[in-house]
Amino acid sequence: MKAGILIIGDEILNGTTLDSNSNFIAHNCVMSGISIKMILTVSDSYAAINEGLNVIKDGVDVVFITGGLGPTKDDITMKALSDFFGQKLVFNEEVFEKIKAYFEKRGNAQVKLNEKLAFLPERCELLTNEKGTAQGMWFEEQGKVFVSMPGVPYEMKHMFVNYVLPKLQGRFKLPQILNKYIMTVGIGESAIAERIEDIENALPPYISLAYLPSPGRVKLRLTSLIESCLDEIVAFQQQIAERLSKYVFALDENKSIEQVVGEILLANNATISTAESCTGGLIAHKITSIAGSSAYYMGSVISYSNDVKIQELHVSKKTLENHGAVSEQTVEAMVKGLLKKMQTTYGIAVSGVAGPGGGRPGKPVGTVWIAVGSADKIVTRKYQLTPHRMLNIEITAMLALNLLRRFVSNNIESKGYSNMVEG
Amino acid sequence: MKAGILIIGDEILNGTTLDSNSNFIAHNCVMSGISIKMILTVSDSYAAINEGLNVIKDGVDVVFITGGLGPTKDDITMKALSDFFGQKLVFNEEVFEKIKAYFEKRGNAQVKLNEKLAFLPERCELLTNEKGTAQGMWFEEQGKVFVSMPGVPYEMKHMFVNYVLPKLQGRFKLPQILNKYIMTVGIGESAIAERIEDIENALPPYISLAYLPSPGRVKLRLTSLIESCLDEIVAFQQQIAERLSKYVFALDENKSIEQVVGEILLANNATISTAESCTGGLIAHKITSIAGSSAYYMGSVISYSNDVKIQELHVSKKTLENHGAVSEQTVEAMVKGLLKKMQTTYGIAVSGVAGPGGGRPGKPVGTVWIAVGSADKIVTRKYQLTPHRMLNIEITAMLALNLLRRFVSNNIESKGYSNMVEG
Repeated sequence: MKAGILIIGDEILNGTTLDSNSNFIAHNCVMSGISIKMILTVSDSYAAINEGLNVIKDGVDVVFITGGLGPTKDDITMKALSDFFGQKLVFNEEVFEKIKAYFEKRGNAQVKLNEKLAFLPERCELLTNEKGTAQGMWFEEQGKVFVSMPGVPYEMKHMFVNYVLPKLQGRFKLPQILNKYIMTVGIGESAIAERIEDIENALPPYISLAYLPSPGRVKLRLTSLIESCLDEIVAFQQQIAERLSKYVFALDENKSIEQVVGEILLANNATISTAESCTGGLIAHKITSIAGSSAYYMGSVISYSNDVKIQELHVSKKTLENHGAVSEQTVEAMVKGLLKKMQTTYGIAVSGVAGPGGGRPGKPVGTVWIAVGSADKIVTRKYQLTPHRMLNIEITAMLALNLLRRFVSNNIESKGYSNMVEG
Repeated sequence: MKAGILIIGDEILNGTTLDSNSNFIAHNCVMSGISIKMILTVSDSYAAINEGLNVIKDGVDVVFITGGLGPTKDDITMKALSDFFGQKLVFNEEVFEKIKAYFEKRGNAQVKLNEKLAFLPERCELLTNEKGTAQGMWFEEQGKVFVSMPGVPYEMKHMFVNYVLPKLQGRFKLPQILNKYIMTVGIGESAIAERIEDIENALPPYISLAYLPSPGRVKLRLTSLIESCLDEIVAFQQQIAERLSKYVFALDENKSIEQVVGEILLANNATISTAESCTGGLIAHKITSIAGSSAYYMGSVISYSNDVKIQELHVSKKTLENHGAVSEQTVEAMVKGLLKKMQTTYGIAVSGVAGPGGGRPGKPVGTVWIAVGSADKIVTRKYQLTPHRMLNIEITAMLALNLLRRFVSNNIESKGYSNMVEG
């Protein structure tokens, strides 16, 4: 089954707003067995919407339309849609009452401005908008389905997931697509491909494997259209996860590494603190982005300067002089000082050359040392990352959280080094 | 002048990759006086590219094409482009030598795979790709300009800014567009509109004002197509900046608040440290995202738990018991303890209820206290922000950096409170 996406919005065309709606719709469609033929963005004008509808409808079964609805600009889109389908706009009493109730509840007197939102094409099914006042509309015309949704992302997403997708699944008997994930941190695409070559070669033609990389992470997705192969696809997922073992932090595509770490700490009734140099607080920020993290996260020392490393973490001057701030000895001392100070079950310490300046022979930009420790054990790792400051900061934070995950799970050796990703 | 953007890429249509290229091109075009009629995304197939070219070329002077170039998939795009223009593909010796040199320099043996990148349409002007091996191409056919660029964002962006835009400006005598900015933090759109209503009403018809909001910030843009009104537009920029005074952190659209703060600290030969509770390290992360920040940023105490506030920042138990962790007294004590510990010129302390849990009567989710201080002065502010955790964390970090900016510039009163944005 094929679909087209029509985005209506001057704010996209003039570069003010980045369109994320089409990505959300496309991702969810593909996951449901609907392939996207085209994405088209047009202006908020009558002529542009009409032209857009004519272009996008060719060769597809469904057209998703977002944007152009709302009190200040719905007139044009409503008129363009109803004319395109040869329908009249009629006043809908029930919708008007809902809009009135919505604004009265908010003590807001904008009812008058929003009254026109109750004029709707005469033949369309309305889709509930739980997050705003613009109605979604479902048309079946010219042998195709047209779905019009508001452009505000959180309104559209809620409507799409809760009303549009279920209705499409009922209407078109979509294939059940099986997707299973392996979420990895700290290993690149080609290193993964090498390690699982035999497993990948053994995949039957009805199970496909996709590599979906982002900085520091690779998401692996096993997909099949054959519902009955669930056991088989799960077995391959397990096999890949076991092979990549220490790099795998989750089998759920919606889990972040900081979420997984939080769950493990909670389950172990353990606490964590961090001592950060080159990441400058990003590890703490990631940990505390999780609601409820105050149950296991106590605090951090961000020791950007050597003075703070010495005074707050009791790294000795001698260690800094002999080995430098970016060294195994320094991160070991940092994590020891941190644990003593914060009295947490576990501690993370990082120090590195984020760049663009600060590189030296033997310690170029991208050199990073990480230590993770508890009262009775410390592990350290050295990484050689990229020439890019923000990438180095981001990847280091993720590598540190993954080391902690492995440390808590007792799945780690004390020392290690890797050229790009941990070996 | 009108343009269309054609994005070629299965990875966009299947929702794996969010297209940011079209937003970059649209923004830069609009800033240069080129309006975008349509953005169209099509598949990597011959038929789809051909259909896309036919749709996008209607009613425009220029077509920007990105994607579909590169060693693994250029064949189809090259063939589709050359067929569309009725051209042959010919081997380009010079380009081949460049590609060979590129890979030899990197010690990479992929020359064979990349050889086909040297087969190019016979009549097109090549555009230098300083960041990769796929050539950009400039066609003038059917009375229009077609520009084909690689899909990798940093290759495309570099080519667009350095080669495509200057060439377009020469070719089409584009209008000089004047844009002047006022960058604000800590005040919402409607509050700005109220305060500058008289200035906005006084704008002549050839100068327009746009409000471009993002979380915690509003960017104001004054635009004119009349080159000779530079003095006039600058006068309005000054007038608005003066009116909004304390909320304005820059007049340059590319400046972030953390950059501005860094420049001021450097200029004053001053240093900074932070004591963060609800922001969990985000202020430190923002400060250290700036290259060279080690010159003025020393370190932070992230005191998420009360124990860390007491032990590391010497907030008294009594203060916490009597006033709570989210209080003026606590952030004052935090900044005092911080300055004593870190010995920096300035200090920032924040404590708030980020949510979703932790709200209480009188201190609902979104309640935030910020203190900024030096050896002889402390200022505090209370804010009531949003119900959303990540928004509260992000906005608090920006408000804190803006308070610091004002503190250093001595443009601040000691105490204040605002319902949503600082009054």
